[in-house]
Amino acid sequence: MPEHVAVIGLGLIGGSVAAAARQSGRTVSGFDVLAAHSRRAIELSLIDTAESGLDQALSRADVIVLAVPVGVIVNLLPEVDCVAPSTAVVLDTGSVKAPIVDVMARLPGAHRFVGGHPLAGKAVSGPEAADPTLFRDRPFVLCPSPHTDAAALERATRFVEGIGARCLVLGAEAHDAVVARTSHLPQVLSTVLAALLEPGDGRLAGSGLRDMTRLAASNPIMWRDILLANGQNVAQAARLFGKRLHGLADSIEAGDGETIEAAIQAGQTAAARLDAGAAS
Amino acid sequence: MPEHVAVIGLGLIGGSVAAAARQSGRTVSGFDVLAAHSRRAIELSLIDTAESGLDQALSRADVIVLAVPVGVIVNLLPEVDCVAPSTAVVLDTGSVKAPIVDVMARLPGAHRFVGGHPLAGKAVSGPEAADPTLFRDRPFVLCPSPHTDAAALERATRFVEGIGARCLVLGAEAHDAVVARTSHLPQVLSTVLAALLEPGDGRLAGSGLRDMTRLAASNPIMWRDILLANGQNVAQAARLFGKRLHGLADSIEAGDGETIEAAIQAGQTAAARLDAGAAS
Repeated sequence: MPEHVAVIGLGLIGGSVAAAARQSGRTVSGFDVLAAHSRRAIELSLIDTAESGLDQALSRADVIVLAVPVGVIVNLLPEVDCVAPSTAVVLDTGSVKAPIVDVMARLPGAHRFVGGHPLAGKAVSGPEAADPTLFRDRPFVLCPSPHTDAAALERATRFVEGIGARCLVLGAEAHDAVVARTSHLPQVLSTVLAALLEPGDGRLAGSGLRDMTRLAASNPIMWRDILLANGQNVAQAARLFGKRLHGLADSIEAGDGETIEAAIQAGQTAAARLDAGAAS
Repeated sequence: MPEHVAVIGLGLIGGSVAAAARQSGRTVSGFDVLAAHSRRAIELSLIDTAESGLDQALSRADVIVLAVPVGVIVNLLPEVDCVAPSTAVVLDTGSVKAPIVDVMARLPGAHRFVGGHPLAGKAVSGPEAADPTLFRDRPFVLCPSPHTDAAALERATRFVEGIGARCLVLGAEAHDAVVARTSHLPQVLSTVLAALLEPGDGRLAGSGLRDMTRLAASNPIMWRDILLANGQNVAQAARLFGKRLHGLADSIEAGDGETIEAAIQAGQTAAARLDAGAAS
């Protein structure tokens, strides 16, 4: 019998998880609070069956993936623990892990819950944007809670690798500190930069500015929730950034070429290290 | 007789100007203080002739393009005014305009000098990276000095349009204030962000972080000079950015979802306006 997967939330991420799981030979049932999403997911063959309730979607599942916004995941977990088969492993796809894994650890069925975060995305959203190759060779972080058992972590790992991703196991706190720097701070910088532009500035925009403001086009409600959920880490990273930026502004104003050059050099070295890391 | 163009500096920008000018039917002589650059420019057919001195390169020119670093342009202008034919128009390609146009305005032959800035580039440099289509449909700003005459501005405009660019005439001070926001601040932000990353952070890097750190890979000496030349504008933009960033960090730390959402919304609106401007 092929493994049966239930995907809750059929937007870009959930739809892509579903499509990739189907391609890997698993059967997939889906549920979304928006009936239109469920309908599109069937039309686009992202899922095998669309269910009309959370309980129905989970009833036969071996693997359950919660692909809904961070704030919703936290509220959904106790209910999922009640209605999911006792043999099912449950993972989520939220961008912040500590608040979610904390709740997972306190559930009666904590042993079968694993936090998850695929480092993949697109500027577009919804089931139309779903892509079975979205996770291919991308990192997919798994954050077990202290009560996650080895069998659940192993099954989650196999699932993540089955949809083409590279599995990385990391503590939830460590994950959140890193993504504050690699994902959430860049989002905030892009937002502040875009909002700083004056009308007409676009006439003198090069490809660099497009790169730097691409993230600013993201969904405000989704990102509000992510920034709130990882607030301490993001605020800390933003303050450190602001301090260094002011230091560099001082050097620029003082005409201190040596310090400016050293700062740009440090950034160049770090950017090269990042590229090398991506290549390996 | 086809128009004769002299290009001084045969790196990415100069090489691309030369190649585009040749494609438009002009003849091009080139000069670079690095003999290897001149040799490559000939091998790659970017120029018709490589000259062994600035004076030789300029001797027959109708249009002279100074495609050397910002700090070098300022020092080169008096000499160019001495040796260039009295009928030639001279423009440069520096990213900062006020310090250059100030010097242009004080030259004996000020009437034929025009500041220039093509909003085009690549992460790679040198004549190998030259591309005749680099300026196609990209803005090319021309900043006349108070003494530039109409004939020179018109000839420079025709040249810029001849290499495929969209000509924009703007005052040097206005130009520098705008590019501080659209180009120089983004460069500084990318540098500070890349340098803030910790070893190992690259494991959790998504495409957003790549976009945000791409500029950080740029040439440190070139950018040191640009930031120094536009120091007041860049420092002011960086301080305003820092102030807004700290404000947003305060809201994130306080859990003020409404303010966070409004900030992201403002960034989204600005990013959409930027895209709309690019499309028009």
